Amino acid sequence: FADSMAKMGLRAIILEGMVKEDKWYFLKIDEEKVEFISADDYIGLGNYATAKKLFKRFGNKYSLITIGQAGEQKLINSGLALTDLHNRSGRMAARGGLGAVMGSKKIKGILLNKKGTYKNHKTDSEKFEAVRKAYHKIINECERIKVLAEYGTASTVMDAQRVGALPTFNFSRGQFDGAENLSGENIYNLIKERGGEGENTEACMSGCLIRCSNVFPDKKGKEIVAPLEYETLGLIGSNLGISDPDEVAKINYICNDYGLDTIETGGALGVMAEAGLVKFGDAKEFINILREVPKNKWRGRMVGMGTGITAKFLNIRRSPVVKNQCMSAYDPRAVKGTGVTYATSPMGADHTAGLTIFMPIDHHNKKDQVKISRLMQISRAAYDSLGLCVFLMAATASHPDIVVALLNSLYGLELKPEYINELGKLTISLEKKYNKDAGIGKNDDRIPEFFKEETLPPFDLTWDIEDKELDEIFLDL
Amino acid sequence: FADSMAKMGLRAIILEGMVKEDKWYFLKIDEEKVEFISADDYIGLGNYATAKKLFKRFGNKYSLITIGQAGEQKLINSGLALTDLHNRSGRMAARGGLGAVMGSKKIKGILLNKKGTYKNHKTDSEKFEAVRKAYHKIINECERIKVLAEYGTASTVMDAQRVGALPTFNFSRGQFDGAENLSGENIYNLIKERGGEGENTEACMSGCLIRCSNVFPDKKGKEIVAPLEYETLGLIGSNLGISDPDEVAKINYICNDYGLDTIETGGALGVMAEAGLVKFGDAKEFINILREVPKNKWRGRMVGMGTGITAKFLNIRRSPVVKNQCMSAYDPRAVKGTGVTYATSPMGADHTAGLTIFMPIDHHNKKDQVKISRLMQISRAAYDSLGLCVFLMAATASHPDIVVALLNSLYGLELKPEYINELGKLTISLEKKYNKDAGIGKNDDRIPEFFKEETLPPFDLTWDIEDKELDEIFLDL
Repeated sequence: FADSMAKMGLRAIILEGMVKEDKWYFLKIDEEKVEFISADDYIGLGNYATAKKLFKRFGNKYSLITIGQAGEQKLINSGLALTDLHNRSGRMAARGGLGAVMGSKKIKGILLNKKGTYKNHKTDSEKFEAVRKAYHKIINECERIKVLAEYGTASTVMDAQRVGALPTFNFSRGQFDGAENLSGENIYNLIKERGGEGENTEACMSGCLIRCSNVFPDKKGKEIVAPLEYETLGLIGSNLGISDPDEVAKINYICNDYGLDTIETGGALGVMAEAGLVKFGDAKEFINILREVPKNKWRGRMVGMGTGITAKFLNIRRSPVVKNQCMSAYDPRAVKGTGVTYATSPMGADHTAGLTIFMPIDHHNKKDQVKISRLMQISRAAYDSLGLCVFLMAATASHPDIVVALLNSLYGLELKPEYINELGKLTISLEKKYNKDAGIGKNDDRIPEFFKEETLPPFDLTWDIEDKELDEIFLDL
Repeated sequence: FADSMAKMGLRAIILEGMVKEDKWYFLKIDEEKVEFISADDYIGLGNYATAKKLFKRFGNKYSLITIGQAGEQKLINSGLALTDLHNRSGRMAARGGLGAVMGSKKIKGILLNKKGTYKNHKTDSEKFEAVRKAYHKIINECERIKVLAEYGTASTVMDAQRVGALPTFNFSRGQFDGAENLSGENIYNLIKERGGEGENTEACMSGCLIRCSNVFPDKKGKEIVAPLEYETLGLIGSNLGISDPDEVAKINYICNDYGLDTIETGGALGVMAEAGLVKFGDAKEFINILREVPKNKWRGRMVGMGTGITAKFLNIRRSPVVKNQCMSAYDPRAVKGTGVTYATSPMGADHTAGLTIFMPIDHHNKKDQVKISRLMQISRAAYDSLGLCVFLMAATASHPDIVVALLNSLYGLELKPEYINELGKLTISLEKKYNKDAGIGKNDDRIPEFFKEETLPPFDLTWDIEDKELDEIFLDL
């Protein structure tokens, strides 16, 4: 979808207001015409079926953003599904309830013509070409990126397992007996052995140098879901006690179809398992619960309202959320820098705001974690603002000059390397201002109490970073 | 129960720790012996049945505090039922989830022998007797107290209706077409006409001069519930569109039996009606929902988790709560001083912390409301701390000298009249400190947004007191 936006010369598509009558619409964007067309015949369809029906009607000439049944119901655990290079609705803008926002406007989706004719002619310049080559060289030589290219994000399973941070049985353990089944290596081997539609290397956008995605097939080689990623393996796999990657992939597909975030879904199901509504490891029953989402039955509704509300509703104290957003697949007691990010990121518990697990430090020791989280959060905010993939940071974070040179050659600017850092700080300060105006204050920048009180096996870790330290992380912003 | 505590010379009964094994207990207190006795045979019983079974076993010689099925399940909308002078479990310490606290300790109840022999001999003194007489004279001459004595708190229905503050259809209107059916006068006449077990005047404690309680009978004169109070008539009556006081009384009885707060229950049911799960006015279906509470079915669970969580779960924006506690029966847009109390009281939205509707001011005008709420909150905190009925305030608030003289003669103290005010301030500052330590800050001292954005018919009022003003109410404490 982002490719198509660039080709159309669009930096953003803003939907103001909302449909007042009881009708649903698609926004259809061609270069010569923008129109709202009825979506009433698509209501109740999942993301995959919606895409299929639209492609049947219009051919494959549109990139799509759609919502599934979760977004239609304005469930707060609902994201947007974006089609990938192969017209799969498997790219989720999963977190933060964006599906509910689009659903509240009664917009079922956006169709964006792929054949835009916009071109930034500066990309033809020798200057740009020289910078691009230098940039690619740095990326292609990075060891971390080589791992991602080969094993994808699933490679993180054993990293988290080793450090004792793999969420297991609703964040009550940091290692999972079935972790090796879910590991990057096992996923890689399964895809290779099974062949068929499986792919160990796939790009999520044209021109990607990393190609960390995959296509996960069943035993007969038929695609179950694409991609199958680490956070899903952690939250739907180990956190629910499911060690069979086929089951994780099936649940992932259902989540994508309904438009549910797999992290938030795994968190909510984990809380339900702790409350005794379903047994850890019972993939079949977890799927039965998910099937209740489109029907708005109460177990489905809990999933749809996410981990925090499920825990409140069921009175479960072990609720792994910050700002009502479920933590991703790093227990904060075992990767403390990421815990600092969970607590202090303006967007709630999320690794993408500042993951620290790949830093060469002692993740169990609280020393310097606030400082490291701050560094990561500022860099990531800058990369997110620029629209750069955060995985590039492993290669380019230490080369802000190259990133800035790319921008300068592309837009005719004269930015200095400090710009990256300043952009990150500006972004976070704007986010914090937004939160403040929305009534979110420092009492919300907190890791839940149970992480302080319950030790995490096997390394017997607790959350021991003081609230006071957390409050100081962005005092200057 | 409080009578029996005084006779036993007890100022407080403190339960520390909790039962670890899967067994339930009563705490049984006689003057010569304190013991824990098994309550396993009482689990699953409501408050009324529990009391009946205990009285059958021990005779009527104990005052009781018990929890119903709501407290057993640790539902946060659960209170404690205290027996009254007639051994009815109808006196609820309803708000704040105390039932869940006792349930978490696996204590089904406390039996306190009524025949304690403690006596404060200072009550025999001439000095005390003189002060007592002066005190009684002030109370007996107060006009507001005369209204309470005759019509009870139900008299407030038409006061709230006139000012447009009677919560109706989930706080979407301030007047209810069926208000006269629920009025103090109608309740009074029904009780008088029906006779039988009905009583228009009843004391909730021995020696009470106000006797504002009642016993509400059915058409055959058989008691439905005792007492039937204003907040219940507002939240279960008008707020749910129920105009038949018999239906309100029946629901009240069920709430008492399960141990649910009628305010929180009415709020949650109102939100469910707005979400379309039940129709406003359909008392039969509201009762069906309540019947799900002991069964832990999902509609019952919503009631049990209260208004705020129900609204989150159902995604209903019109959620009339502050600090997750449902507002009582005064819409804050129409009684703005009470709105200030809802927002700023450390204990969440509650009238008992500082009701302003009986002050001779323009309740629709925001002028001076913060000042008036502050006065009321400080006085009420003092009266609550002393264990004095807040209804006395109508008579004695302007006579702190008499209240202090009573204390001085009773305890041999030399307190000055300023003591009352200082005690109130101290109480609130301690409560605020507790909240601060619990992570509750000024962002929680807020009236929900919908009160600012939706005008309340028929007087088209909005909540227009600035957050900044709210933040200044207790700055000195």
